[in-house]
Amino acid sequence: MLQNPELHYLDNAATTMVAPEVADVIDKAMREHWANPSSLYGPGARSEEALNAARAAVARTLGCKPKELYFTSCGSESNNLALLGAVRTRTFGKGIVVSGFEHPSVQRPLEELAKQGYNVTVVKPRPDGTLDINEMLEHVDKNTILVACMMVNNEVGTRNDVERLAAEVKRRNSRTIVHVDAVQAWMRVPIKLTNIDTLSVSGHKIHAPKGIGALYLSDRLVQAFRPPYLGGEQERGLRPGTENLPYAMGLAAAATRLAKTMKSRDTAMKALNQRLRDGLKAFPEVELNSPENAVPEVLNFSENCIKSETMLAWLAEAQVYVSSASACGRGQPSHTLAAMGKDPLAIDTAIRVSFCGDNTPEDVDAFLNRFEDGMKSLQRIRK
Amino acid sequence: MLQNPELHYLDNAATTMVAPEVADVIDKAMREHWANPSSLYGPGARSEEALNAARAAVARTLGCKPKELYFTSCGSESNNLALLGAVRTRTFGKGIVVSGFEHPSVQRPLEELAKQGYNVTVVKPRPDGTLDINEMLEHVDKNTILVACMMVNNEVGTRNDVERLAAEVKRRNSRTIVHVDAVQAWMRVPIKLTNIDTLSVSGHKIHAPKGIGALYLSDRLVQAFRPPYLGGEQERGLRPGTENLPYAMGLAAAATRLAKTMKSRDTAMKALNQRLRDGLKAFPEVELNSPENAVPEVLNFSENCIKSETMLAWLAEAQVYVSSASACGRGQPSHTLAAMGKDPLAIDTAIRVSFCGDNTPEDVDAFLNRFEDGMKSLQRIRK
Repeated sequence: MLQNPELHYLDNAATTMVAPEVADVIDKAMREHWANPSSLYGPGARSEEALNAARAAVARTLGCKPKELYFTSCGSESNNLALLGAVRTRTFGKGIVVSGFEHPSVQRPLEELAKQGYNVTVVKPRPDGTLDINEMLEHVDKNTILVACMMVNNEVGTRNDVERLAAEVKRRNSRTIVHVDAVQAWMRVPIKLTNIDTLSVSGHKIHAPKGIGALYLSDRLVQAFRPPYLGGEQERGLRPGTENLPYAMGLAAAATRLAKTMKSRDTAMKALNQRLRDGLKAFPEVELNSPENAVPEVLNFSENCIKSETMLAWLAEAQVYVSSASACGRGQPSHTLAAMGKDPLAIDTAIRVSFCGDNTPEDVDAFLNRFEDGMKSLQRIRK
Repeated sequence: MLQNPELHYLDNAATTMVAPEVADVIDKAMREHWANPSSLYGPGARSEEALNAARAAVARTLGCKPKELYFTSCGSESNNLALLGAVRTRTFGKGIVVSGFEHPSVQRPLEELAKQGYNVTVVKPRPDGTLDINEMLEHVDKNTILVACMMVNNEVGTRNDVERLAAEVKRRNSRTIVHVDAVQAWMRVPIKLTNIDTLSVSGHKIHAPKGIGALYLSDRLVQAFRPPYLGGEQERGLRPGTENLPYAMGLAAAATRLAKTMKSRDTAMKALNQRLRDGLKAFPEVELNSPENAVPEVLNFSENCIKSETMLAWLAEAQVYVSSASACGRGQPSHTLAAMGKDPLAIDTAIRVSFCGDNTPEDVDAFLNRFEDGMKSLQRIRK
């Protein structure tokens, strides 16, 4: 990595390092902006101004109005807030349509709603890791209150065409709420909010700390929106709790920082991805799980020889850090690969490599070298 | 204040300044503990160890097991999690009993539950600001699923006997969940968890930043507990979302720091409170709203002459910062004083002074001097 040539952190879809300049902003804010933004005296007003400036900066990177941007404590909270709020807001039907490879913070609340009597249709990804938007649309009708689809899948990197999905959903039912989990998409691909009602982002995937996220909530919806958590008037009453100003400012700094390098990073990520793909061609057992349209930041493959946990531990000994599935599952088998219909061997030997702007070609080479040694020396699964 | 003799911040019930040593811990953690605590490689394991150490340190100050302590993003979230979880967990009845001067993050979710058909009994405080525990107990029966009462009121400082309440509730119905909002009590009064099922605390009232809180959830309840938000397996699945390790470590540092000075601070707070009470005796119009049993950190009174907002602005010009009610209300009239049955003049002229360990007798004198000038020179309300 740029910071430390000995370290090869290639698990940036799990979390990213806090950028030093972001940490600086937070550290300063913790010490200077001590007043409660809701307090009416000068220091409180200055906290509120700083909060509003942070809100405006984050909103700018999403192309929404500042008042459409609500700070939360993480992407999981943003997803829960959006989904549980949506079903409280739209009560004309019970239909929900969702992709089959969502993050647990989308998947599990909807499973719970299904138990409560909602009619939840889960559309699985194709075996190649792509999602059939038309299949999702087939299930949208006059009773559909919510459609949820992530913009970029966290495990294999699929770029779903949520823009077309949202437009077509609205054509079928203008009152259906369209929710997009953009946690893995933000600052990796351009986001257009047209036809999208709610959209989640997270700080710790863009070099801000863990513990801050945001929810875009369209002004079209805000009057009717009934949030699940209630309390004080913070965040227009939709997300109560005294605001985490230091992290909000950190989120703004992180987003502003990455917004400047969208194009150059994309080029660099494509080069790293291609270098990894080229290197993997030397291993005939390797089978790619990431589809063609995946973002370049994520490459998921099955080596089909050695258990993921064995290979991951081997790589980690050389300070090469990757994962087998999402970090949230703590080493549980990938639910995305299962939804894609992958066989058990492919699931048990899956590896996800995920890049950030601090990675270098040397990180890819370090991975490939250590991986090659592992493929030669580690105990293979008996078939 | 100790840090700056020109500054007289006397609104510590609204929020406290982040202690420099707490900010140092957070700053270091942001830069060093970059890995996701759920990741299985070395740096992830070190993040997890640091998280567990923080959890143990906070649990120690509450006298619970580390596994009974769940990090949240704030006290409001802790309250919502506890209350909405409680009614999902206990389904044998519809009865809820709550005090009439709770924080909005307790009051508003229960108002919402009342609309959904729960039988919510609200027991108002007495005119002197104390709460009749016996009156609350009268409403507890075999259908009562939840009793909620704050330990220290945030506006007038009443110390409610939640220990006796909890014991007596359990005697009447062992399956009733007892929730205590201890946000204003933690590190001000000793907390005993016997008979209490869930208890909320917050970082920003104890010199940690805004954006971190915790919920004690008794191990007696955890198996049955059904949290309202769902997602990954973080915090034993009860509070999904990648953990905010820097702030969790900051919360631990803040709690450990204050735990050492419980007794000496109590003596100092009593002296400041007495100094203020003595000074206020010079103003015959002043009427104390804080009851005799209030914690010394909070003194609420009505000056009965000048609108709170006018007096507050006047005080602020001299860097004397106090409030009229809770900060969450953003200058709205106090709901606690209204519940106590205070007349409109008393409510419109209320002032809450709240101390922390960094306040000095000079802060009290600065308040009294400026207040005296204000009482002489500001425009009085026409009766």
